[in-house]
Amino acid sequence: VPFSPADRLPAPVLPALAYPPTLIPNAINYNAAVEATYVRSIVPAVCEAGDDQNYGSSATCDVAALQALSKRIHYGKFIAEAKFQEARAEYAALARAGERDGIWALLSNAAVERVLLARVERKARNYGGDVTDAGVRDVFKVEPAAIADIYRDYIIPLTKEVEVDYILERARLLQRQEVEDAAAN
Amino acid sequence: VPFSPADRLPAPVLPALAYPPTLIPNAINYNAAVEATYVRSIVPAVCEAGDDQNYGSSATCDVAALQALSKRIHYGKFIAEAKFQEARAEYAALARAGERDGIWALLSNAAVERVLLARVERKARNYGGDVTDAGVRDVFKVEPAAIADIYRDYIIPLTKEVEVDYILERARLLQRQEVEDAAAN
Repeated sequence: VPFSPADRLPAPVLPALAYPPTLIPNAINYNAAVEATYVRSIVPAVCEAGDDQNYGSSATCDVAALQALSKRIHYGKFIAEAKFQEARAEYAALARAGERDGIWALLSNAAVERVLLARVERKARNYGGDVTDAGVRDVFKVEPAAIADIYRDYIIPLTKEVEVDYILERARLLQRQEVEDAAAN
Repeated sequence: VPFSPADRLPAPVLPALAYPPTLIPNAINYNAAVEATYVRSIVPAVCEAGDDQNYGSSATCDVAALQALSKRIHYGKFIAEAKFQEARAEYAALARAGERDGIWALLSNAAVERVLLARVERKARNYGGDVTDAGVRDVFKVEPAAIADIYRDYIIPLTKEVEVDYILERARLLQRQEVEDAAAN
């Protein structure tokens, strides 16, 4: 899901990979929200205030971070497809009734999220810690708990918005197919 | 030290940062050697054989890895400047005699290198390990010892080539300045 509009990107140099189709065709794109969240909420949470003059290096890191966030958040499409396949009837009924909150609730699993947040903090502690010759590693550029908070407050909710949108589109397609199948029989 | 020739790069968007001058002007550029070493020796040491079709993602990672290697190896200029300032007379004498091997030996410190290699392996073990919910971390995409070997066999020697080249240029400049000073007095 690229940030730049497709008509402003050059044609790819490489041919597209031939994946087995997993998702339904969709145009769900939360990159505007990803960028706004990154600029307004995530950067202030992980960066010291002030101006270090390193605009070029910062922009390079921003692009890498934005693309990683976008990729992670749009993976919600795959999560939603798997969850939809496990509970088609429930999701279809909620979608027909326009119950966005109901879909959100059905997608949510507080226990799984708690485990995820604990794992995120453990990863931040491990990968973000300082390795010294003495092996001490309790110095962090960003507090591990702050990374877990970013997951809880921004990454998980944005992923779930993607999931809800996908479920709605998925249910609409299912309904169209059922109508067509009924007409064909 | 960019990989692309300056005349083929677009003009920078940002103004250059104003650093205090630390290095003498020099055109030392080991990027051709960095790239050859990466393609022929480093990639085969860290990647499984075979074709995973992900050419685009691989190329993106290659660029990041090559730029990181290049940056690390060309930091040798700063190391060499510091070492030269600590032992001007010795380096100048070796440079005047064209003793490249002698400069290499004077730059080398086996004890420091042993500590560095141990730290590299510890970092590779920490940052390259798998963080699971159980906290076990003994699964590695690349064996930590292989990363230390890459430092020992390629990164340290290339850095030292940069250092020797810099010392030679540094000594030539010192000699020119001494001749000029003598002429002026």
